[in-house]
Amino acid sequence: MRTRFILLFLQLPVLAWAGGAPLSPTSKACEECHLRHTPRVVQEWRVSRHAAATPADGLQQPPLRRRVSADSPPAPVRDVAVGCFECHGANAEGREDTFDHFGQRIHLLVTPQDCATCHPVEERQFAGSKKAHARGNIENNPVYAALKRSLIGSTRVLLDYTSPSLISEDAAPEVEEATCSGCHGGQVSVNGVREAATAEGTLTFPRLEGWPNRGVGRTNPDGSKGNCSACHGGHRFAITEARTPQTCARCHDVPKSPAWEVYRGSAHGLQWAAVPGAADLAPLPWTPGRDFAVPTCAACHASLLTGADGAVIAERTHDFGSRLWQRLYGAIFSHPQPRDGDTSKLRNQDRMPLPTDFDGGLAPEGLLSGDEQSSRQQDMGAICASCHTGPIFEARWAALAQTAAAADQAVLAATQLQRVAWQTVAADPADPFDELLERKWVEQWMELANRVRLEAAMGPAPSLNTFGGGWSQINRNLREMKANVY
Amino acid sequence: MRTRFILLFLQLPVLAWAGGAPLSPTSKACEECHLRHTPRVVQEWRVSRHAAATPADGLQQPPLRRRVSADSPPAPVRDVAVGCFECHGANAEGREDTFDHFGQRIHLLVTPQDCATCHPVEERQFAGSKKAHARGNIENNPVYAALKRSLIGSTRVLLDYTSPSLISEDAAPEVEEATCSGCHGGQVSVNGVREAATAEGTLTFPRLEGWPNRGVGRTNPDGSKGNCSACHGGHRFAITEARTPQTCARCHDVPKSPAWEVYRGSAHGLQWAAVPGAADLAPLPWTPGRDFAVPTCAACHASLLTGADGAVIAERTHDFGSRLWQRLYGAIFSHPQPRDGDTSKLRNQDRMPLPTDFDGGLAPEGLLSGDEQSSRQQDMGAICASCHTGPIFEARWAALAQTAAAADQAVLAATQLQRVAWQTVAADPADPFDELLERKWVEQWMELANRVRLEAAMGPAPSLNTFGGGWSQINRNLREMKANVY
Amino acid sequence: MRTRFILLFLQLPVLAWAGGAPLSPTSKACEECHLRHTPRVVQEWRVSRHAAATPADGLQQPPLRRRVSADSPPAPVRDVAVGCFECHGANAEGREDTFDHFGQRIHLLVTPQDCATCHPVEERQFAGSKKAHARGNIENNPVYAALKRSLIGSTRVLLDYTSPSLISEDAAPEVEEATCSGCHGGQVSVNGVREAATAEGTLTFPRLEGWPNRGVGRTNPDGSKGNCSACHGGHRFAITEARTPQTCARCHDVPKSPAWEVYRGSAHGLQWAAVPGAADLAPLPWTPGRDFAVPTCAACHASLLTGADGAVIAERTHDFGSRLWQRLYGAIFSHPQPRDGDTSKLRNQDRMPLPTDFDGGLAPEGLLSGDEQSSRQQDMGAICASCHTGPIFEARWAALAQTAAAADQAVLAATQLQRVAWQTVAADPADPFDELLERKWVEQWMELANRVRLEAAMGPAPSLNTFGGGWSQINRNLREMKANVY
Repeated sequence: MRTRFILLFLQLPVLAWAGGAPLSPTSKACEECHLRHTPRVVQEWRVSRHAAATPADGLQQPPLRRRVSADSPPAPVRDVAVGCFECHGANAEGREDTFDHFGQRIHLLVTPQDCATCHPVEERQFAGSKKAHARGNIENNPVYAALKRSLIGSTRVLLDYTSPSLISEDAAPEVEEATCSGCHGGQVSVNGVREAATAEGTLTFPRLEGWPNRGVGRTNPDGSKGNCSACHGGHRFAITEARTPQTCARCHDVPKSPAWEVYRGSAHGLQWAAVPGAADLAPLPWTPGRDFAVPTCAACHASLLTGADGAVIAERTHDFGSRLWQRLYGAIFSHPQPRDGDTSKLRNQDRMPLPTDFDGGLAPEGLLSGDEQSSRQQDMGAICASCHTGPIFEARWAALAQTAAAADQAVLAATQLQRVAWQTVAADPADPFDELLERKWVEQWMELANRVRLEAAMGPAPSLNTFGGGWSQINRNLREMKANVY
Repeated sequence: MRTRFILLFLQLPVLAWAGGAPLSPTSKACEECHLRHTPRVVQEWRVSRHAAATPADGLQQPPLRRRVSADSPPAPVRDVAVGCFECHGANAEGREDTFDHFGQRIHLLVTPQDCATCHPVEERQFAGSKKAHARGNIENNPVYAALKRSLIGSTRVLLDYTSPSLISEDAAPEVEEATCSGCHGGQVSVNGVREAATAEGTLTFPRLEGWPNRGVGRTNPDGSKGNCSACHGGHRFAITEARTPQTCARCHDVPKSPAWEVYRGSAHGLQWAAVPGAADLAPLPWTPGRDFAVPTCAACHASLLTGADGAVIAERTHDFGSRLWQRLYGAIFSHPQPRDGDTSKLRNQDRMPLPTDFDGGLAPEGLLSGDEQSSRQQDMGAICASCHTGPIFEARWAALAQTAAAADQAVLAATQLQRVAWQTVAADPADPFDELLERKWVEQWMELANRVRLEAAMGPAPSLNTFGGGWSQINRNLREMKANVY
Repeated sequence: MRTRFILLFLQLPVLAWAGGAPLSPTSKACEECHLRHTPRVVQEWRVSRHAAATPADGLQQPPLRRRVSADSPPAPVRDVAVGCFECHGANAEGREDTFDHFGQRIHLLVTPQDCATCHPVEERQFAGSKKAHARGNIENNPVYAALKRSLIGSTRVLLDYTSPSLISEDAAPEVEEATCSGCHGGQVSVNGVREAATAEGTLTFPRLEGWPNRGVGRTNPDGSKGNCSACHGGHRFAITEARTPQTCARCHDVPKSPAWEVYRGSAHGLQWAAVPGAADLAPLPWTPGRDFAVPTCAACHASLLTGADGAVIAERTHDFGSRLWQRLYGAIFSHPQPRDGDTSKLRNQDRMPLPTDFDGGLAPEGLLSGDEQSSRQQDMGAICASCHTGPIFEARWAALAQTAAAADQAVLAATQLQRVAWQTVAADPADPFDELLERKWVEQWMELANRVRLEAAMGPAPSLNTFGGGWSQINRNLREMKANVY
């Protein structure tokens, strides 16, 4: 018999008593049954803040620590835990997805309108953002219909006597759901009812078309736009999760909107991965330099930040573009941020629904003025100054401006080549997105220029910014286009 | 002198006595010497379960907690720790890699046949799987020889008076080992002996050709197929490691079989990375919703799962395709899972050794029937239902079916273009894989269609599924092929 | 009211007194003011070793545990904490970036020359390395000027009556800073002064051109080359950070120098990610097999390693190529490591400043001899032998040699095609890098061959090595080149 000595670290388990917030009788009934049938959902909720405190508890916090933004949430929600029924039974009347379930009127989808019961400020900010309009901004813009067909559509081969040709058709709904609508949001609507055999007997539910859909700009059966659970996932509602970069990564990924990859390669992102404890994602309010050595996405784009002295550095916002002055992707050329989240209303100088024309000229209305841009830059500077001296972030902004100009110049070069092709036999301008050359032109602005602009904004990963999707690809793509132009 | 106050967290170190399982005298001798010469190997083993318990100990566990599947492992192995000699000395006779080492008959490779001493059920399941046949499935299929030469072969330039031409030759063994054979497995065989000067004097070992090789479908000197340490790595034999997604990532990576990237971008994978403690990989049996909030690869494809009530949800399997109904990659079109892991025996309607013909028609024999597919779908549903309601996963499966059909349609379009090229001067059908156009055709099914099918199966990352290797690339590739066809 | 029982793990907070090293009066004044204005910097420093111990303290450590390599650092630095002034006030005279700041003569940049006060051995090793010469090696080599213009330059379209043509111009400084110079280093110089309004009044600082720059081969205002903070980041100076693979990843990333991706896919990297605690990055000296189960970059390329018996396995080096025998990237063909970090002095047989000629022939001088290569291989073997038996790493090295030869053969094939193009109308040899075909040729050696060589050196990820950037791309690229040659 061998013997071994092992050095253990003793941790003392302690049985503690924790009183959750009181649950409404309706939600208690939900919980008891669903603990058997969907236990994970109940368990996630049980460790959430919604289970631990009532809205009234939240309102007793000092203002900067409050998560409830309603001055006075209505009774009875105010005085109970935010349980199943408080959300799934909210605003139940007048929407077609409400149904009877064991005597209660509930709906499967919880929408921004429902969350606004306790979080009206966040809902109002979000409603004005590009995220809330993410679906409409592509659906209501005729330019994007052809682009979408070229990207995700169904391409068929037409074989004739001389040579094959390609026909583009709209994508299957399932493909659209897993691509564009997965981020921009789909339309969820009720189409009759379905019966389901369950352990509790046969139950009747509304049949939801276009569901599940996790897109942030979802159109809901109650007519509201948006999906809070795109970022506040599952039944956890955890601020730590909303502040985690991977939460944003689902949509902001290579090659079109590569914020996640750019962040990971930046000085911030590399430390976030390499330095254990570089960011404590839980505190509210959140203090740069103390709570986190490096920011995650939320710090710069959304969260309420305070200094070590408790003074507010930046107010919380759920209009995630509202701290930004320059829009780096979303259209052909970079341009000042639009004032309104509904970008389909913009008209460029050619009266097309785009923020710029094809030479980079700005839409005459609807974009931030230079003064407004400067003001936002100054506000962002207050965040940066928590950790950096002025010359550091001022140099970054100057580089961003120069890089955006250089990238726009590279897009202009591609557009010039594309125009030559449209003017000759090389390309057919009838559909500006469906041919190989046109796809290379689209990639120049929608993937490559986007990438180098974002690298400049968030701190470049030099190797990736040179080779992988960066400047060398921009220049290579121009050479590919040139080879096909004449 | 400055003074600083620091808040520490006290952890009490405790010197505990731990009795490992008794070691056989032979293994004790191994350990003493190898602790000096290959200390890491010994240390890994010492903290493994093989060191902590005897097979007899394991058999005293309740059935669902047993890791030993032999009803009665033979003495003396049964009553000692599973040490060096118990594995490296197992089944020593009748195989050419056994040699004398300080008076013992041992072999360097431990094969599935050796592991079967205690784990015969796992070995039997594995032996019938596509993983065990991973090497033969490409080596015994003449279609793949040309494909392999095109992918990893040595391409030389033949310069003549008119224009250069390219000659493809087989890859160097070292290149094949680092590519195809690295996952599919190589052939390890004995080629004489080698002498090595060691601190213990000059020792003689068999010279192993094709070793080291970590491929899961390795052919071993004892004639057995497979390599348990492909997933149960090193001398750790840790179930936590086999359940970690990165273990699967070595082979299931972009662009051909991108399960790892698809998982990371899925709702499951994003939470796995973002939510600390989302999955406790150690418990046996393993309970969805309690032990893990999100599954890793093993949960859905291999592990024994039980409900919170202790009832079995899914039996453990080491035939990793046996829970699946549709095969999403491995051939040109998606198709029902084959019944047998040896896919080289399949014959399509053109009598080629493939599961489908070039129009997508299924091989008439050897693939699951519709009923068998439905039965597997139902079993998988029991796993999904641990955390989700039916409409969620039923919508996923409907989307999978539609997406597989749409991807197959895109493959058919590429095949139509390729056929036009073969019928004209554009491509030579003698070798169907060696020209640029043919490579684009191969990429259509082996990389791009694979990707979007997997995204549908495991939960799409919308951005990547649209742009990075997804639908936009499928449509772009068709345009590239079209540009080269006539 | 619901009640819940929760199992907590008790951790006892203990208020401990920690005496930091004594701070010089000057640094104390810096710290007091900067704690208000750049708190994060001060806080990072406070938990660093520089704050915890004086150089004299360090010298009392046993030799293998010393981080200070000066035999006797000068007073007064020797006897105080290494605070703000000890670094930012070092060697203040005779350099143009020194300025007056509240009565002290300081400089913003701390250069290798400053660090050499206490770390002269590391500075000397680094000064001879390719890293210190990283900027000069591209700036002083005329071959690379054209390559750089093709990769990151500004490409404009010249529209004339017949067809458009492309003009390449040098990149904007901001683009160069975010690409080549971001890793290779830029030139930081003083250009007058700037005034800044601060909470302490208007202050005057030198205006630094080319700053911030994090490149490892930066040229500093004091004339020194290099940037220790490229790896020892921020004010943390943490050895754990320098030993973390992500620190290297900023520059060693796909597709040109993909060490980070190759490592992650290797057996080492997969375990590093998947096995909790696989590497304790803190110990000094560092013992393979005990402190780490798998090495990080630093273990094989830089760190002082000792065996469990305390004997030195490898001395620490800050010349990161000095343990390597073969240079796998940096030029067209693989070749023996150069003896000197300044590679612009090499001359191939055609008198070009390259380590090989275009057929792979070696420069006659300046590269390691076969004996020197063997000696380095033997030294590396001592590291590998900590965990592996000889046949394992000898097989790896044989595979590396074969793979490098096979990759060089594939580069030669591409070069042959490129030469045919240069000899015909297909390409203009005036600028060897600016056309599409030439870009494909460059990618053959600078991205694709680099990748498969590194995969062989560090342990291949078979799937990526086959498909994603690996051998199948090498063969595909040859087919693309061939299609454009005649």
